[in-house]
Amino acid sequence: MPKIVDHHQRRLDLVNATWRIIARHGIEGATMREIATEAGFANGALKPYFPTKDDLITSAFGHVFNQTNQRIATTSTGLAGMAALRAFALEVLPLDEDRINEARIVIPFWQKALTDPAKAQLHETSMEEWRNTMAGHLSRAREMGEVTARASNEDIINQLMSMLLGAQIIAAMSPTQHLPAQLNAQLEAYLLLLGPA
Amino acid sequence: MPKIVDHHQRRLDLVNATWRIIARHGIEGATMREIATEAGFANGALKPYFPTKDDLITSAFGHVFNQTNQRIATTSTGLAGMAALRAFALEVLPLDEDRINEARIVIPFWQKALTDPAKAQLHETSMEEWRNTMAGHLSRAREMGEVTARASNEDIINQLMSMLLGAQIIAAMSPTQHLPAQLNAQLEAYLLLLGPA
Repeated sequence: MPKIVDHHQRRLDLVNATWRIIARHGIEGATMREIATEAGFANGALKPYFPTKDDLITSAFGHVFNQTNQRIATTSTGLAGMAALRAFALEVLPLDEDRINEARIVIPFWQKALTDPAKAQLHETSMEEWRNTMAGHLSRAREMGEVTARASNEDIINQLMSMLLGAQIIAAMSPTQHLPAQLNAQLEAYLLLLGPA
Repeated sequence: MPKIVDHHQRRLDLVNATWRIIARHGIEGATMREIATEAGFANGALKPYFPTKDDLITSAFGHVFNQTNQRIATTSTGLAGMAALRAFALEVLPLDEDRINEARIVIPFWQKALTDPAKAQLHETSMEEWRNTMAGHLSRAREMGEVTARASNEDIINQLMSMLLGAQIIAAMSPTQHLPAQLNAQLEAYLLLLGPA
């Protein structure tokens, strides 16, 4: 009987291994061989799943995005308005080692996306999804009287989006100088700016 | 008589050429040979100035940082408080093609800095300089009654810093979908949040 191979699981193992390797060594340092070893595969075993390292990087970005969305779904269950917006932002902000590692994967992806329209499109679609989520919470927060700022919802979402993305750079670049507590305080202070004086 | 070579000018020409090449092709696409050709040099002529492409990238980051600071110095002459803070932010934000190109240089630098402590340090020192500049303007804006928000100056600077860095990513990734007018509106709306209601 031929060995039954769970291709979906294999793919997942590989993506997880990429995640760990890139977080540890950066993209330059991660060879297809290292990734295969980390995932417990023979060197050639990667090809059927990811023909090139580039495919792996795209897949790792998708993985991080989905992982973040799963955390958001968990922590924002039953929340609305400002509380839901806060829960969303807290899962995107690099507030612990796992999420700082995620930032370390996303930055190389951005770098690749600069010259790769398909990657840029994937980034844009993912961010659009986040913008829509935030827009929903923000509208609700207005209805609930939690947000009273004169700034338009569009401007607020742009501000939040930039802040969340910028925080990835700050935390990935120098985590010891930009502690989670600071990012947290920065977010709280911003949300407070949106509310009634 | 031996030809007199202006080494400082040569170095500057090379850095400018790198700037143009990286902006056009991305870092992956820029070979030392292309950069030399663009700068009007023979292939081997780069080595004495920049032994590796890595040295060139670091230098290009420094170049962009200095260029931005020169623009800031020009546009904020005679301004204080909120007006100076606005002028500062407007020069860092990627509001035109030149500054979007700068963002396209800075993102690959960040990616390299993830695994290169010297680059991360250069980033950190540069950002610290910007933080101090913003802190000065913000204190003055408080004194002048232009900033009345309950948020601490530290939180405001962190917010601005994240927003300015995040905007680089957003504009570099999809400039056609994130127009300068939006970034501008987003900044104005944010500065308004800081002022008296």
